[in-house]
Amino acid sequence: MADEAAVRQQAEVVRRLKQDKAEPDEIAKEVAKLLEMKAHLGGDEGKHKFVLKTPKGTRDYGPKQMAIRERVFSAIIACFKRHGAEVIDTPVFELKETLTGKYGEDSKLIYDLKDQGGELLSLRYDLTVPFARYLAMNKITNIKRYHIAKVYRRDNPAMTRGRYREFYQCVNDRRILDGMFAVCGVPDSKFRTICSSVDKLDKMPWEEVRNEMVGEKGLSPEAADRIGEYVQLHGGMDLIEQLLQDPKLSQNKLAKEGLGDMKLLFEYLTLFGITGKISFDLSLARGLDYYTGVIYEAVLLQQENDHGEESVSVGSVAGGGRYDGLVGMFDPKGRKVPCVGISIGIERIFSILEQRVEASEEKIRTTETQVLVASAQKKLLEERLKLISELWDAGIKAEVLYKKNPKLLNQLQYCEDTGIPLVAIVGEQELKDGVVKLRVVATREEVNIRRESLVEEIRRRTNQL
Amino acid sequence: MADEAAVRQQAEVVRRLKQDKAEPDEIAKEVAKLLEMKAHLGGDEGKHKFVLKTPKGTRDYGPKQMAIRERVFSAIIACFKRHGAEVIDTPVFELKETLTGKYGEDSKLIYDLKDQGGELLSLRYDLTVPFARYLAMNKITNIKRYHIAKVYRRDNPAMTRGRYREFYQCVNDRRILDGMFAVCGVPDSKFRTICSSVDKLDKMPWEEVRNEMVGEKGLSPEAADRIGEYVQLHGGMDLIEQLLQDPKLSQNKLAKEGLGDMKLLFEYLTLFGITGKISFDLSLARGLDYYTGVIYEAVLLQQENDHGEESVSVGSVAGGGRYDGLVGMFDPKGRKVPCVGISIGIERIFSILEQRVEASEEKIRTTETQVLVASAQKKLLEERLKLISELWDAGIKAEVLYKKNPKLLNQLQYCEDTGIPLVAIVGEQELKDGVVKLRVVATREEVNIRRESLVEEIRRRTNQL
Repeated sequence: MADEAAVRQQAEVVRRLKQDKAEPDEIAKEVAKLLEMKAHLGGDEGKHKFVLKTPKGTRDYGPKQMAIRERVFSAIIACFKRHGAEVIDTPVFELKETLTGKYGEDSKLIYDLKDQGGELLSLRYDLTVPFARYLAMNKITNIKRYHIAKVYRRDNPAMTRGRYREFYQCVNDRRILDGMFAVCGVPDSKFRTICSSVDKLDKMPWEEVRNEMVGEKGLSPEAADRIGEYVQLHGGMDLIEQLLQDPKLSQNKLAKEGLGDMKLLFEYLTLFGITGKISFDLSLARGLDYYTGVIYEAVLLQQENDHGEESVSVGSVAGGGRYDGLVGMFDPKGRKVPCVGISIGIERIFSILEQRVEASEEKIRTTETQVLVASAQKKLLEERLKLISELWDAGIKAEVLYKKNPKLLNQLQYCEDTGIPLVAIVGEQELKDGVVKLRVVATREEVNIRRESLVEEIRRRTNQL
Repeated sequence: MADEAAVRQQAEVVRRLKQDKAEPDEIAKEVAKLLEMKAHLGGDEGKHKFVLKTPKGTRDYGPKQMAIRERVFSAIIACFKRHGAEVIDTPVFELKETLTGKYGEDSKLIYDLKDQGGELLSLRYDLTVPFARYLAMNKITNIKRYHIAKVYRRDNPAMTRGRYREFYQCVNDRRILDGMFAVCGVPDSKFRTICSSVDKLDKMPWEEVRNEMVGEKGLSPEAADRIGEYVQLHGGMDLIEQLLQDPKLSQNKLAKEGLGDMKLLFEYLTLFGITGKISFDLSLARGLDYYTGVIYEAVLLQQENDHGEESVSVGSVAGGGRYDGLVGMFDPKGRKVPCVGISIGIERIFSILEQRVEASEEKIRTTETQVLVASAQKKLLEERLKLISELWDAGIKAEVLYKKNPKLLNQLQYCEDTGIPLVAIVGEQELKDGVVKLRVVATREEVNIRRESLVEEIRRRTNQL
């Protein structure tokens, strides 16, 4: 009924609009009103029409996805703990001014909260700036921390699809870049914006990046060409030695400092036996403003195809660097606290693993349930609840179907579907005998266990003590 | 210099304001401008002045707090897993319209995001509405899930302080409440708003709640007084039986349904042996609109004091109920999916545990490091790095001090401070002999271990295989 009335009302408004020869923007307003009205009235049985979706750029994680995500997390956390890291947490939003002036060209991608009275807030854009705020606020100068949390950026992430074979890290140093810019003839004022252009070399060919430098950013073509020669260089200790001999670069104070530290880094990498995984890459720039020294990225290589072509880089899964100035920006006296860190792109690693699991048809368990408490006859709900209560109290992970009188076949099928390895079956005879029938789902083996030994037997068979 | 100019400018503005005999609100505006100007200009060395704080109502968690928080989480997660629950995750914000019309009077506390183009978004207010959206979107009708995440409310939470002895759960049913409202003479249209008033009984005395009902919400004094008689009732199976005999309540269809289900619930609670922890409480209302049946809260009781007074409820740490209509609000055809859930207030439980740990002077470890790799002489940085690299590769949790030539005493002190139980010391003699000196921090016992047996010995002594 409400619908019909609304449709009649709409028709009437349209008719009046036509007669009145209303202005286009008046019509537009009325149409917007009508659409809103329709949204509120329309739909079956007078129900509201909702757009059933998550916000753009976000997704839900169902139980299967969460099981995969927790594998990723536990591998990463184990690594952090192996190296003695502590964990911290900070709020999902910060005062807007805390984030202002920290990200350079990326600042336009920050999510602001609506001004609803009180403080002006923004969602965190990364974990680095909140960490620097935390250090300055608590006057901490020495900490090795990890922090696992979501960050929010108003961009349109392109989800890379494909299979990945392995990854490597590439390394550079902001001081080498800045020294390089200086010796190539980039004016000081353009260092950061030209650095942003160099950062696009993983997604664009050099020609396009050069056009941006010269066309959009007003760099001289000669300076751009000199940069073009440097940024194609990549290598290891050899390249460092070569650049330390470079007549122009070696005269630049910043570049020399950067190259000296890069040499030391490669000495440590040699001690750790991982130089083969690391490439010193003069095209690596990193988008964010706050880096002051070494910068690095972990890059995935696509699986080689059948034709044995060279593996292709398909994107960065982690990145970071040294940011010695950021904490000082929060300190009233500008005291510097040197920092170095890495950020791991969980979403990307997760989507790669998700594809791999889908391709492998591996069956993923989404619970850790050890045993299903089942009954073979009707009217045993109370007995099932009594038994599961005993098991829960003993710390056994157990489930029971919610139906009053489920069929045994359905209970066994539930175990097959969800991967529960054991079934504890109570029936009238078992109750009389003081036993429980324990069934192994995989082998269909059944054995009567005395009720007082059941907990121990389940633990023994599922190896979870 | 900038500061002086700003001060002169301020004085000038104040002078002009005085001469002009400006209106008070004009003055207020000028003062606000000046304060803002001051904030931007003031400070040493021309540095910007930042307000070094987290947004109101939020806090950081440092490593010690995180260690406590993870204890809480692992206890809760173990409980969920014991009962066969799966885990999901949803985005921190939702389309604004997803949250609209779900929370009743609480909707004003929702954080909206600023309209920066694109979709209108709000931060999630709870995990229940996003869960209902997830169920409807994925057409899921059967799932037992848990979800651990932060929710966002624009209120001023009062942090309860105090020591707590134990907690109990109180239970009620929305249908019993609605039936009670009906038989007390509350008009249908006022059910939800009167329910919101009843919900305040844990923070306000009955007299104030009655004033709100009659004064603000226009309920007749007689109806309010009838409600007043019911809401003081609490008990167990006895009370259920008594109300099933209540001449008015037992005639109401909703109340009768609610009481019937409450009786069944108490039968199950008896099977689980936990009736002693549960109180059927007619004053329990829960603030949110979406509950349709049983509702409950877990309430902490304050530690008894020396005078043996009765324990006092100091606040709810968990709450929930049945919400059979919420998923249907998202379904285009309004199909109902019955749901029941509980939400645990981690922040509150955490702050209670934090106080307890502080009071106990228990030493909390913030890392799991098993061994510190140390050296007794100078110039052994490379040897320390080689050894720790071996340990890391074997999965041992190990740390090394960052200094080039740290003193042995400082290295031992670091272990005392952070709770690292073992020290692996390399010196020239040990290197020559192919051994490492393993020191037990607690007992100061030192023993030479052959380098190839070191990993095994550390595992054995820290019991982490």
